[in-house]
Amino acid sequence: MPELESWRTLKRNLLLDRSPWMRIYADDVELPDGQIVEGYLRLESPSYVTIVPLDRKNRVGLIRSYKRGVDAIDIQPPAGIIEAAEPPLQAAQRELIEELGCSAEAWHSLGSYVLGGNFGGGPAHFFLATGCEQIQAPDSGDLEEQQVLWLPLPEVRQRWLAGQFRQLASVAALGLALAHLDSPDGTSSSAGVEVQT
Amino acid sequence: MPELESWRTLKRNLLLDRSPWMRIYADDVELPDGQIVEGYLRLESPSYVTIVPLDRKNRVGLIRSYKRGVDAIDIQPPAGIIEAAEPPLQAAQRELIEELGCSAEAWHSLGSYVLGGNFGGGPAHFFLATGCEQIQAPDSGDLEEQQVLWLPLPEVRQRWLAGQFRQLASVAALGLALAHLDSPDGTSSSAGVEVQT
Repeated sequence: MPELESWRTLKRNLLLDRSPWMRIYADDVELPDGQIVEGYLRLESPSYVTIVPLDRKNRVGLIRSYKRGVDAIDIQPPAGIIEAAEPPLQAAQRELIEELGCSAEAWHSLGSYVLGGNFGGGPAHFFLATGCEQIQAPDSGDLEEQQVLWLPLPEVRQRWLAGQFRQLASVAALGLALAHLDSPDGTSSSAGVEVQT
Repeated sequence: MPELESWRTLKRNLLLDRSPWMRIYADDVELPDGQIVEGYLRLESPSYVTIVPLDRKNRVGLIRSYKRGVDAIDIQPPAGIIEAAEPPLQAAQRELIEELGCSAEAWHSLGSYVLGGNFGGGPAHFFLATGCEQIQAPDSGDLEEQQVLWLPLPEVRQRWLAGQFRQLASVAALGLALAHLDSPDGTSSSAGVEVQT
């Protein structure tokens, strides 16, 4: 198979700066065949973490709130933006405490992903947190009024398959977490890498 | 549990218009407690489809190309933007022909999802296409130079679990498709709704 080549950035034009939430660029790029494309859009948005927390009763911790992007009440795993210079795992641990008041026994990385294949954004870092235990009251500090739900794993799986989680990151993170929990060697598989805490 | 309430839009300000690719709004909103938040960002981006195609040899059809949003060579299921007034299923069938030159025996809806819980975007409509068969040469018309790969289902599952698909939509759609194909009653489960073609 002949090797594919990257595109080359010729010039970047900042169209909109709403830092730290969003910057939009129009990039002039050169394709491998020499073709020039002007104004290819790029989104820069904060890196964030999404955590799928499992407690010792095999229940998944979830947040129910009005989400502006969905324009509806939605249920999702805890998630939040990474603060400046914060390692993703540390952000995940902070968000789990803030949103659910929980600490976890073990943390497993489920990978890092960009929001859009064309315009970029993020990335999102996913974690599975097992052996979760409530150690304090949740205090998210988010704009949204939030309710914490602990749902049995089979119910979460059923809702996920039925398309009831409405955000792309929720669907992606829950799918990976459910597969790791279902795999014969559980979360110790080479794919779901346990991370040092 | 007390019922959660939606936010109310007071005013919309169009910050950036790069139609049909992207529009950015700053919305002034009123929260249920009466708090006013000014300039909450909203992304409007095209609806698109992502298709997970399975052939009769249990192989998944994938596209390998340089993706600008990832800034790397990436492998992903076929996907594309819905054209004006086109129903999502029809867009999925068109993209499967354009990108892989394939038609499918059966189509199963895997749900519709927004890109970002806060800023919105999309939605993305996911489909599983089974019994795929090549009927013509691929001709995507995309900017990217593309290679078509047909990988065995277990290898796709392994790559997915290992975090090798780099885009959020790929990870979400593959996860749902793999779960439907693994479920005891296969793709005829109530969750993976077969759709009329």
